[in-house]
Amino acid sequence: MATTATHPQSNGTRAAAAAAEEVGNGNGHAAAAEWRFARAAKDGGALAAAGDKMSIRAVRFKISASVDARDPRPVLPLAHGDPSAFPDFRTAAEAEDAVAAALRTGKLNCYPAGVGLPDARRALAKHLSSDLPYELSSDDIFLTAGGTQAIEVVISVLAQPGTNILLPRPGYPNYEARAALNKLEVRCFDLVPERGWEIDIDSLESIADKNTTAMVIINPNNPCGSVYTREHLEKVAEVARKLGILVIADEVYGNLVFGDTPFIPMGVFGHIAPVLSIGSLSKRWIVPGWRLGWVAVCDPKKILQETKILTSITNFLNVSTDPATFIQGALPQILENTKEDFFKRIIGLLEETSEICYREIKDIKCITCPHKPEGSMFVMVKLNLYLLEGIHDDIDFCCKLAKEESVILCPGSVLGMENWVRITFAIDSSSLLDGLERIKSFCQRHKKKNLLNGF
Amino acid sequence: MATTATHPQSNGTRAAAAAAEEVGNGNGHAAAAEWRFARAAKDGGALAAAGDKMSIRAVRFKISASVDARDPRPVLPLAHGDPSAFPDFRTAAEAEDAVAAALRTGKLNCYPAGVGLPDARRALAKHLSSDLPYELSSDDIFLTAGGTQAIEVVISVLAQPGTNILLPRPGYPNYEARAALNKLEVRCFDLVPERGWEIDIDSLESIADKNTTAMVIINPNNPCGSVYTREHLEKVAEVARKLGILVIADEVYGNLVFGDTPFIPMGVFGHIAPVLSIGSLSKRWIVPGWRLGWVAVCDPKKILQETKILTSITNFLNVSTDPATFIQGALPQILENTKEDFFKRIIGLLEETSEICYREIKDIKCITCPHKPEGSMFVMVKLNLYLLEGIHDDIDFCCKLAKEESVILCPGSVLGMENWVRITFAIDSSSLLDGLERIKSFCQRHKKKNLLNGF
Repeated sequence: MATTATHPQSNGTRAAAAAAEEVGNGNGHAAAAEWRFARAAKDGGALAAAGDKMSIRAVRFKISASVDARDPRPVLPLAHGDPSAFPDFRTAAEAEDAVAAALRTGKLNCYPAGVGLPDARRALAKHLSSDLPYELSSDDIFLTAGGTQAIEVVISVLAQPGTNILLPRPGYPNYEARAALNKLEVRCFDLVPERGWEIDIDSLESIADKNTTAMVIINPNNPCGSVYTREHLEKVAEVARKLGILVIADEVYGNLVFGDTPFIPMGVFGHIAPVLSIGSLSKRWIVPGWRLGWVAVCDPKKILQETKILTSITNFLNVSTDPATFIQGALPQILENTKEDFFKRIIGLLEETSEICYREIKDIKCITCPHKPEGSMFVMVKLNLYLLEGIHDDIDFCCKLAKEESVILCPGSVLGMENWVRITFAIDSSSLLDGLERIKSFCQRHKKKNLLNGF
Repeated sequence: MATTATHPQSNGTRAAAAAAEEVGNGNGHAAAAEWRFARAAKDGGALAAAGDKMSIRAVRFKISASVDARDPRPVLPLAHGDPSAFPDFRTAAEAEDAVAAALRTGKLNCYPAGVGLPDARRALAKHLSSDLPYELSSDDIFLTAGGTQAIEVVISVLAQPGTNILLPRPGYPNYEARAALNKLEVRCFDLVPERGWEIDIDSLESIADKNTTAMVIINPNNPCGSVYTREHLEKVAEVARKLGILVIADEVYGNLVFGDTPFIPMGVFGHIAPVLSIGSLSKRWIVPGWRLGWVAVCDPKKILQETKILTSITNFLNVSTDPATFIQGALPQILENTKEDFFKRIIGLLEETSEICYREIKDIKCITCPHKPEGSMFVMVKLNLYLLEGIHDDIDFCCKLAKEESVILCPGSVLGMENWVRITFAIDSSSLLDGLERIKSFCQRHKKKNLLNGF
């Protein structure tokens, strides 16, 4: 046995050297001059960039690791959009029953079809059509393993050398990570906090060129909690048409609105520019762990069919993994049986917690919220670092907050906005109040001593 | 409304032209000079190559489409490894119960951790360690959405410009498709039918060079039904070490053996060369639709850790989709509670159907089986085209067989072996007998009339 076996922490060079040494060991093993796969992970290539720098999960793990295990208080997860652990947010009984029943048939243990079970696609087409001025067909629906795979499919299909894609800033980091993996150039346009986080259309137009193929719009917005008006969405569609690009409408928070602005699917404007709408059961049904998402083709002029984009999507899904078959099989019943009461109750909860969140944040001087949330599960707040002592930036803020108060927030820099933080209000109201109280204490404790105006 | 809306079948150029025409329509829509995303699907790029040419699903759909709907007989699916639809092959009650119980807790609707739930990883590490001369830890286990995602992860992590990977011929086409998507060069080595489909080690060595980073070995073998001996596996590990490459051991058919050769996991030789073992519940538990697979790191010398390959895998999974959380949550119970009787029964069924298959094939003159299957769910047979009239190649054979006899086989050319076909025997025995009888009739009907020796 080589010495490396007893030194698992030694570096790659030593391992390779030790392997080479074994030539003389008389154990009959040929030696490798070097392990040739070592270069695969060297020099922080696309993979390292995508994983290390931009993965929202990687940063979340880092911040979570800052929590002091000796703190007897519960850790409060105000970083991500997943309230499923809280009893108030348990999914609809009808949805759970549908999945259990599909499993128990024993007939849905088989491989799924590449783009989704026909019945599931048909049911979803019908469901989504009710909010559109035209009918979607089964062929317009591609089922995916969560919104994550929907992003993967769309970005992979568009990634061609020399082209670029437009992303909102702040945004959802998985787009950028997936683009990096596919070596697709990303250009960011701004969302304007003072205008309810609307897209800065001028900045959008100024960064596009003839190699731009698509733009992403997230509505209801993650991370900002804003909901776009019909007028704004139409304006975006017009610009997309002018630029000749398609609109990727991330609507995973679709229907989760509780302000004055109703949710309008981008597909309503599919006749102006073709729309690929990304959706999921994850948020509306509070089941991100079920991994059932979709790409819906909202393109009444069939431009995406004619340009073979839909063929590419089919090809990609044919060599990719799928949502579990029995969960797909349950989709028609989930859509059919879930009662309006469930959605009303969830939206009522989010309305209540968003109000609490907005009210309490106003009371914390070192953070500022420019826009009251009207949808999704989040709000973006600006850190007023000039009021704080010894806090370098948003990641530092989040790590120290985790360490001292066992509260987890999402630093804005992973979303494209340094020195902002994203707070979720999708959590039970007592935990939310507790969390905001702890943030307040933290800010009090770290406030600059020499400010003329105290808190 | 533009005219294209009423002509959904018109081509992309016409759609773009019509969009451009709208400038003068006075409807206020700006016009796109061209749809700039159209180039994404042009010229049959990597995506088209991966999807159209190599997807086993795409070819299966084509052959299935050949079936004559007027044939009153049932369609017999002898193409792929999924007997879950047959009552004899229903999964273990304990496994189904475990998934149902996990769902019903309501506590596993949450986002999963990026590389798998800790309890599930721990349980699987313990389970796999029982066949290895060393202990795997939780950190050695990465849960994936089926074997398909395991292939995606491993190939994506290794794909670097200028490098290449060695694949068996015949093999499983998803490796080649995923490599094409990642622009990773593939070089094929032969499996030798006369030597029980062993790897031709000389051909393996001759195609490798300093840019080779890994090789794939599939054991028990898909598509050949062979099981490699301990001696052969050790020889493969020695060659991998000599070449400085890692071994990707596709063991999704692990333990499904019923001949004289026992299943030995490649990880047994992980001290010679590092092994990434790909596994899944899909085949042993007959639940491909559950989409729960894994990559197990069998590398007691920690070379993959030191060379940061494991970091790359983690990074990749952090931006990718996951197996459903509640199915992951059920894994400890599935592994713990499934009774030995279930496995024995399934292996007994496969042994019986493989015997039937081998016996009946011997009786069909236009196909030849060089090696009796000892594992997996398949056997490869050679088409003796010189005995057949008007059958051009394996795909033609499969399409005509589907049309005339409603039997679906997998043509060898999608597996790398033209004019061979893969037959699965993982199906209930009466359907198998029926299918083989139909193949016999087909061959009789198409035999060359002018042969000196008749059938």
